[in-house]
Amino acid sequence: MATKCLGIVGVGLIGGSIGLAARRTKQFGTILGVDHDSPSLTQAHNLGCIDEGTTLDVAAERADVLVFCTPVDRIAELVVAAARHCRPDAILTDAGSTKVAIVAAIDTLSSPAVRFVGAHPLAGSEKHGCAAAEADLFDDHLTILTPTERTQAQAVDGSRRFWESLGCRVRLMSPEEHDRGVAVTSHLPHLLSALLAGMLPEALVELTASGFRDMTRLAAGDPAVWSAIFVQNRDNVLAALKMVQERLPKVASALTTSDATAIERLLADAKRIRDDLGD
Amino acid sequence: MATKCLGIVGVGLIGGSIGLAARRTKQFGTILGVDHDSPSLTQAHNLGCIDEGTTLDVAAERADVLVFCTPVDRIAELVVAAARHCRPDAILTDAGSTKVAIVAAIDTLSSPAVRFVGAHPLAGSEKHGCAAAEADLFDDHLTILTPTERTQAQAVDGSRRFWESLGCRVRLMSPEEHDRGVAVTSHLPHLLSALLAGMLPEALVELTASGFRDMTRLAAGDPAVWSAIFVQNRDNVLAALKMVQERLPKVASALTTSDATAIERLLADAKRIRDDLGD
Repeated sequence: MATKCLGIVGVGLIGGSIGLAARRTKQFGTILGVDHDSPSLTQAHNLGCIDEGTTLDVAAERADVLVFCTPVDRIAELVVAAARHCRPDAILTDAGSTKVAIVAAIDTLSSPAVRFVGAHPLAGSEKHGCAAAEADLFDDHLTILTPTERTQAQAVDGSRRFWESLGCRVRLMSPEEHDRGVAVTSHLPHLLSALLAGMLPEALVELTASGFRDMTRLAAGDPAVWSAIFVQNRDNVLAALKMVQERLPKVASALTTSDATAIERLLADAKRIRDDLGD
Repeated sequence: MATKCLGIVGVGLIGGSIGLAARRTKQFGTILGVDHDSPSLTQAHNLGCIDEGTTLDVAAERADVLVFCTPVDRIAELVVAAARHCRPDAILTDAGSTKVAIVAAIDTLSSPAVRFVGAHPLAGSEKHGCAAAEADLFDDHLTILTPTERTQAQAVDGSRRFWESLGCRVRLMSPEEHDRGVAVTSHLPHLLSALLAGMLPEALVELTASGFRDMTRLAAGDPAVWSAIFVQNRDNVLAALKMVQERLPKVASALTTSDATAIERLLADAKRIRDDLGD
């Protein structure tokens, strides 16, 4: 019988899905949940995402793997607080959408013995709360691990095994490379989605169809969660926004002169890139 | 037995879906297809979208309802060419995503006897070709009809009945109101989708997840079809683009100062609008 203990700090969509995915693997005898919101803990228990709700201290003392799934602006402080209680061989990891700020804060504040490896599973949805959790959320998705020079090799191996056990593929990159990349592939799309949704006057609601709905689905994400992401990855998001600001006048200029060839070329380039991504 | 004849000019996704939706209603004894691409006609016939492929002249002579589903830059000339052969009581309508240019050209060029009513079913997908056609594509979707002062009341009634028979709800507005509205709800989202897809470097493909894919799905649309739409609705699309250009610096400024409250407010406003749209 499995005797290992998994601790999940923050039992929302991601934390709850980690619980369900980990349960599938039968590697943990106990799955503990920690959340400042006690109804969430009850719900996570009722949905089978966790076995018991507890405090951060207790989860830290008992966990073989402790994974932090709170909004990004809470992760570093919780890791540092938990680290004081963790067993020296415990694996600590997270699921935050930004990595530079979190990893730097933990590298600065924690003792070398802490085996924290930053992680970001590239899976999710605009929904939130563990009611939306899915055991297969991570299947065939990529999880980025962002170890630094200070990260122990054994911790990287342990984190990799944990994330792979949830169904993910794993790839290592630096926190900096991660944050630059997701600024373009995730944070900018979210910002454009919110910008577009925010432009819709009430009178035009009836003229929206599947295209508008697809393009604004991300905008339904939790404002507090995403605001923290934008602030933590500010410079990279600003650089991505600047790329948009530089490209818009070119599009406008092709339109102004009714340059159908230029417009069609822009659309064809975009279509080629999109078609290559698959469904 | 139904003896009425439906003619579909342009048997792509929309034309093919109209054929399948009309067949469900059993109101037409014959469904004729017209397309300059003869393999498309064969495919439409094999898929049951049409009964026979024929020429525009023949379809115009025989049709009780003739619906034009070509790219928007071909519709007006085809309607005018067909009108010479149409029976005086035939209903002519279209499925073009723009209305002002099409309706104006037809109003100018056609005799008062022609019963053309501009239409735009707010349904579709990034796919194209009648292989992607669906009998229920229009169910519970809105179709906008854009009659003008010159449009005969009987033609409006006939068009409304035809579109409603396909499963749509119908709403009347002026061509100008339509084009201004869809510039924001359809054409701008398409342009932003293409812009975003076009910004993705090869190296970041692995960092894309469902958010990026949702946001760039529209960019897979046919470049020639969409280029024609953008040119026909140029001024309204430029006005919508300008709204984006004016809002981006405000977003950038909130980010630059790490004004989490302002960012969260922007995201919360967008979320409220998006949540109201439903799934």
